[in-house]
Amino acid sequence: MIYAGIDLGGTGIKTALINEKGEILIKDTIPTRAERPGEEILADMAEMVRRLAQEAGIPLKDIAGIGMGFPGAVDPDNGTLIYAVNLPNCRNLAAGEYMMKTLGLPLYIDNDANVAALGEGLFGAGKGNTRCLVMITLGTGVGGGVVINGHIFAGAYHGGTELGHTVIVENGEPCSCGRRGCWEAYSSATGLIRAARREAQLTPDSLLWEMSGNDLSRIDGKMVGDAADRGDAAANKVMDEYLYHLAVGLGNMYNIFQPEILILGGGVSGRGDKLLNPLRELMVNEVYHNDVSKLDIRIATLGNDAGVIGAASLVMQEGRKE
Amino acid sequence: MIYAGIDLGGTGIKTALINEKGEILIKDTIPTRAERPGEEILADMAEMVRRLAQEAGIPLKDIAGIGMGFPGAVDPDNGTLIYAVNLPNCRNLAAGEYMMKTLGLPLYIDNDANVAALGEGLFGAGKGNTRCLVMITLGTGVGGGVVINGHIFAGAYHGGTELGHTVIVENGEPCSCGRRGCWEAYSSATGLIRAARREAQLTPDSLLWEMSGNDLSRIDGKMVGDAADRGDAAANKVMDEYLYHLAVGLGNMYNIFQPEILILGGGVSGRGDKLLNPLRELMVNEVYHNDVSKLDIRIATLGNDAGVIGAASLVMQEGRKE
Repeated sequence: MIYAGIDLGGTGIKTALINEKGEILIKDTIPTRAERPGEEILADMAEMVRRLAQEAGIPLKDIAGIGMGFPGAVDPDNGTLIYAVNLPNCRNLAAGEYMMKTLGLPLYIDNDANVAALGEGLFGAGKGNTRCLVMITLGTGVGGGVVINGHIFAGAYHGGTELGHTVIVENGEPCSCGRRGCWEAYSSATGLIRAARREAQLTPDSLLWEMSGNDLSRIDGKMVGDAADRGDAAANKVMDEYLYHLAVGLGNMYNIFQPEILILGGGVSGRGDKLLNPLRELMVNEVYHNDVSKLDIRIATLGNDAGVIGAASLVMQEGRKE
Repeated sequence: MIYAGIDLGGTGIKTALINEKGEILIKDTIPTRAERPGEEILADMAEMVRRLAQEAGIPLKDIAGIGMGFPGAVDPDNGTLIYAVNLPNCRNLAAGEYMMKTLGLPLYIDNDANVAALGEGLFGAGKGNTRCLVMITLGTGVGGGVVINGHIFAGAYHGGTELGHTVIVENGEPCSCGRRGCWEAYSSATGLIRAARREAQLTPDSLLWEMSGNDLSRIDGKMVGDAADRGDAAANKVMDEYLYHLAVGLGNMYNIFQPEILILGGGVSGRGDKLLNPLRELMVNEVYHNDVSKLDIRIATLGNDAGVIGAASLVMQEGRKE
């Protein structure tokens, strides 16, 4: 069988057809144009599945169904897109009904962070170890996805696993969710950049400041990493503090879930071993009774394809739901 | 069918026979005498099950099996008691094999906090809402038990859900687990007492200090609550800070698990509505986007029987394992 996966984002709609090994047969991306009516976005997605199937020479009847990752709240039971900050017109949208009517295919939806965790778990860094798997996405925010017994776990009402919105510093930095001191406020790329800009302002003799061209707003996550790699004390201080906060939050997640594999994705994870090696050392202090014998922490391997592969995986799972 | 439940603790062995409604038919407690060989403790437990069955007029063949809660690490798959601080001689003990040999009954074991969560979930405060349920025990430590889809969840290697060992204050109070700033260090009865003793020492004119008879070591959790109820400013300050830390930790757990029901047990939960009412107000600030519409927080109802009822529930579940 063939499985369709859609990664619906605020800027792009990415669609792919995938085989049972998680290999992408064909994929494409079109602009979302998020300001238009949600129905038009749905129509584009259906058309995209039809077109990719045609281009790949796959009859629609060979496609088992469509999976979709959505950057917000969904109701997976009846295929409704509930709400996403970046897709204001996709509110309470009966996407499942639409896809069945238009293509005769069932639609399975979930939150994008959950779907990415499933994709990485089944076909990426997790390599099928989905008895208990946690994926943390270090991007604009700190996203969390949890897979338990092969299926996405998201709490009783499918709005849980907001892993980034757990306080690690009481009364700390304000967070977008309304709390103070959330892990996300420290371990997101946004948190890294905020800390770097503060530090650069205090150290006009630093390489970090020099690299920014005396313009704090130009400092991004990659610049901090590059300056640190070149031995800049200011950037290394920022990076050390970033790693410490990250280890504390990951330690919390490990003590809670004790996952087979802890996967790091998102922009910051691009640092690879420069992130993993110091993190593994720091984690010894953060894991229950310092027992890291079962700690297996890895960088995500599917990159930007985790979304479509994970989305398509939702379809594969429907035949073997517990 | 009838189900046997054993709550093995460092001071007492409590055993009960239970029907399918979770009602206790007969129960008894004997001293553990933890210093003796583990085999003797096993023999006493087997004998206790046999004796209670006899006293209740129940043939052993009507007992479906034995469940046990253990205050430490277990291997549920092969019925082995691995290690518990308070039971030094119950190390790597093949309890399942022993019960089968001695009584011809299967043994199902789990950690005591997990078992209590299952008992409260099925027959106590949870009333069968076990799609996702979290129980927090506020005692010497902060214990955590999680039930997902009707079954205990404890991570990939059954050593997870150490919910109390999640940092809420980076570089905060030292914790027994080796970390600093764990939730347990603030929200356990131990944490409450530590904070109260510090505060009493600073306020020799407080009622708290007076109630202690000028002896800090006499301050316990109940005394803090009583002094607060009588309007003592020092005790109320301690209690307010305690409630704040508790709300932060519970907010973290809610954002992660989004449980149907969040149950509070252990000594401190004895304050009932005096604990719940302020907590519910504080939780508004701690839940993701202040959405408490699905927050349902309750006090445990089974008291000291949660252990034996939960242990016996393990047996009931074996016929319908996912």
